[in-house]
Amino acid sequence: MSAESLKNLLIEELQDIYYAEKQLVKALPKMAKAAQNKDLKAGITAHLAETKEQVARLEQAFKLLGEKPKAKTCHAMDGLLEEGAEALSEKEASAVRDAQIIGSAQRIEHYEMAAYGTARSLAATLGEDEVVELLQLTLDEEGAADEKLTAISVVVNEAALEEEEVE
Amino acid sequence: MSAESLKNLLIEELQDIYYAEKQLVKALPKMAKAAQNKDLKAGITAHLAETKEQVARLEQAFKLLGEKPKAKTCHAMDGLLEEGAEALSEKEASAVRDAQIIGSAQRIEHYEMAAYGTARSLAATLGEDEVVELLQLTLDEEGAADEKLTAISVVVNEAALEEEEVE
Repeated sequence: MSAESLKNLLIEELQDIYYAEKQLVKALPKMAKAAQNKDLKAGITAHLAETKEQVARLEQAFKLLGEKPKAKTCHAMDGLLEEGAEALSEKEASAVRDAQIIGSAQRIEHYEMAAYGTARSLAATLGEDEVVELLQLTLDEEGAADEKLTAISVVVNEAALEEEEVE
Repeated sequence: MSAESLKNLLIEELQDIYYAEKQLVKALPKMAKAAQNKDLKAGITAHLAETKEQVARLEQAFKLLGEKPKAKTCHAMDGLLEEGAEALSEKEASAVRDAQIIGSAQRIEHYEMAAYGTARSLAATLGEDEVVELLQLTLDEEGAADEKLTAISVVVNEAALEEEEVE
């Protein structure tokens, strides 16, 4: 009558997300530093604070499931961050580079939305309601962060176009 | 007065997505074969057909922009597919493995949604309305595919729980 296997899958998902969030805590300051647009810089910095809370929430979720927090290397997140780093290294600060940073950040947000969504569904099936609540909180934050980036991208893309017209 | 640089960014985004979609065309048949749930198998097979159309749409977008279609290696997609492949190799066919397949597939869908969203915004800023239309068509399909996977996951997760209770 145990849900051991589905529970293991949930734990693996959380280990994957835990890795992703911890890597992101390291990567976001570099992205914020590289951003030229003030709203983008502020948005990334605010998301860094959120991300740290999300890490703490994951640690709470592990505890609720009777597990020690563990990070499992996530190749997809490595790839996402590698591409983000390429964007930063390729060009000088500019609105176009800001557009690239937003592109990377939104891919990361979407990865997290998918991962948290899967984990939340698994937790719901397992009747782990407190875990569901924790994951839902973060999921809502990731969605809001993504929408904020979309709003900033409109301004940044226009600025990139103007930048080019001036040259 | 040219938008060369923002246009280059759009082309780079399209090259990244083109690579991702072409890799996905190779990966989806394996995922469909491995799926146990009939709706999941059928859903993945249907999405394979859609993905092939999406590749054709990207080729049309390149043409509209005066570019030859070119795929640029996308580390994030490689990571996503690598993780998906791990899921397939680790276990025998079961509802739990189906849940894992759905998790991988939704991460891929979300990656694509983010990437197409960025490309569409760039195309819109550049006034490339026909390209916007093509990308929006695909974006809608990816969103629908993701929602379908969420619906299937409810059934699959419950089946996984029952599977374990029977054991």
